[in-house]
Amino acid sequence: MTDSAPKSHGRLAVRPTLKPSELMTNTPDLAGVWKAKVITLFPEAFPGVLGESLTGKALQDGKWQLEKIRLREFGEGKHRNVDDTPAGGGAGMVIRPDVMGNAIDFAMNGAPQDRAQWPLVYLSPRGKRFDQATAKRWSKARGITMICGRFEGVDDRVLFHYGIEEVSLGDFVLTGGEIAAQAMIDATVRLLPGVLGNAESIEEESHANGLLEHPQFTRPAEWRGLPIPEVLMSGHHGKIAEWRQKMAEKITQERRPDMWDAYQAAQKTQKAKK
Amino acid sequence: MTDSAPKSHGRLAVRPTLKPSELMTNTPDLAGVWKAKVITLFPEAFPGVLGESLTGKALQDGKWQLEKIRLREFGEGKHRNVDDTPAGGGAGMVIRPDVMGNAIDFAMNGAPQDRAQWPLVYLSPRGKRFDQATAKRWSKARGITMICGRFEGVDDRVLFHYGIEEVSLGDFVLTGGEIAAQAMIDATVRLLPGVLGNAESIEEESHANGLLEHPQFTRPAEWRGLPIPEVLMSGHHGKIAEWRQKMAEKITQERRPDMWDAYQAAQKTQKAKK
Repeated sequence: MTDSAPKSHGRLAVRPTLKPSELMTNTPDLAGVWKAKVITLFPEAFPGVLGESLTGKALQDGKWQLEKIRLREFGEGKHRNVDDTPAGGGAGMVIRPDVMGNAIDFAMNGAPQDRAQWPLVYLSPRGKRFDQATAKRWSKARGITMICGRFEGVDDRVLFHYGIEEVSLGDFVLTGGEIAAQAMIDATVRLLPGVLGNAESIEEESHANGLLEHPQFTRPAEWRGLPIPEVLMSGHHGKIAEWRQKMAEKITQERRPDMWDAYQAAQKTQKAKK
Repeated sequence: MTDSAPKSHGRLAVRPTLKPSELMTNTPDLAGVWKAKVITLFPEAFPGVLGESLTGKALQDGKWQLEKIRLREFGEGKHRNVDDTPAGGGAGMVIRPDVMGNAIDFAMNGAPQDRAQWPLVYLSPRGKRFDQATAKRWSKARGITMICGRFEGVDDRVLFHYGIEEVSLGDFVLTGGEIAAQAMIDATVRLLPGVLGNAESIEEESHANGLLEHPQFTRPAEWRGLPIPEVLMSGHHGKIAEWRQKMAEKITQERRPDMWDAYQAAQKTQKAKK
């Protein structure tokens, strides 16, 4: 129900008990810098691994931003309840639409209304599978709001009302959406300008050109009786490139017939265009 | 090269500079309890989200164990280098086979040699895709050793020498294997006995029976003009079960034609058997 989405954007849930300062991280807002807003019951889990290595350095350097939105703060009553039993019975608990709705209104306040510019996604095993193309698309937006589910998920009316994009990390079930959010943020952030030192590295890697990556080797030249393939030690750049391409094709063909079929089809289309 | 694997199991890399106590977490070893050993350059990233919620409580309650193996401790020289430039040229760095080999020997020392009992996996976008069936299989093992890659990956000879199972979280590229490891550990640990409070919850969820899960609703009965579907408020258990089954089928059919085809094929086989 995308039609009703704008209705929500202008509304900030103002409640006497709500302390906006508690809902935000202390990072100052950097204009024009890609931002992930994450609605979660486990804000302590962030940035987690995202605070380390390349993504962590990029976060410190202000190349991307992370805002944690604490769902608990939007909970009802003294105990700030966020969930209730499923209508119609069954195991587990479901996150209440009013509680999640208020958190989403808060998160989307001030964000661009065009969802291409600012996707609003719910991490769920029922969603469309996340892939490299999705990461690329998101990296070109101004930011994203991610809703992490827990328990039996979120009341379906929330997904309907906001026209939320459901995205799945894969065909498996996690305890909650937090790890999925971290995986998707990681895959997206490393495509932002200036995050990876070497752009060449992105071009050659798995899933960038429709093939799995060729095998890699490094020193020592011999290890436990196994030498580095001779061609890689030849210094002949043409032959090395050819060998790597062949190995990438071979590995893709063996391990991922689906990717191999798609790759061959794409090659044919390219040739036909010439 | 599975044949050569036993050769490695009995060997513990003993080096004067190695302090085993530093390589281990302080958790005492619990006999018979499922254990994840994670070889990583970012041990601080663990347990991360796994320390929260159900998986966190189960970890505290000794229902599973986590051992971090710090790859850096196995590094070479004063700076404990773990990587070197790719043979044949190219961007990025590759993890050295000797360094990773010593870490793997350390991790696999004492673990069952039968890989069905103790899988040895490398998290890589080139691997077989992780799914719920893999999580189930791993949850029935005694534990697992996971190798987290970084940079341009691990020297291919390591994968060959140990007959390592390459597993991918999905068709996208992450900065490193740590988030993938956390996702896979989460999906596996929640299937271990006693981790989830309510077993029924596992039976009904997405990917458990080959269908995506039906939508869920909870209080309030009406929210922003949207009511909970009438049938769920009827109290008629038969009709509710029927509606949920139909919705699960409809959602699967719409969103995942591949799953729907597989589901229908499985149903036909079942009927033929009767």
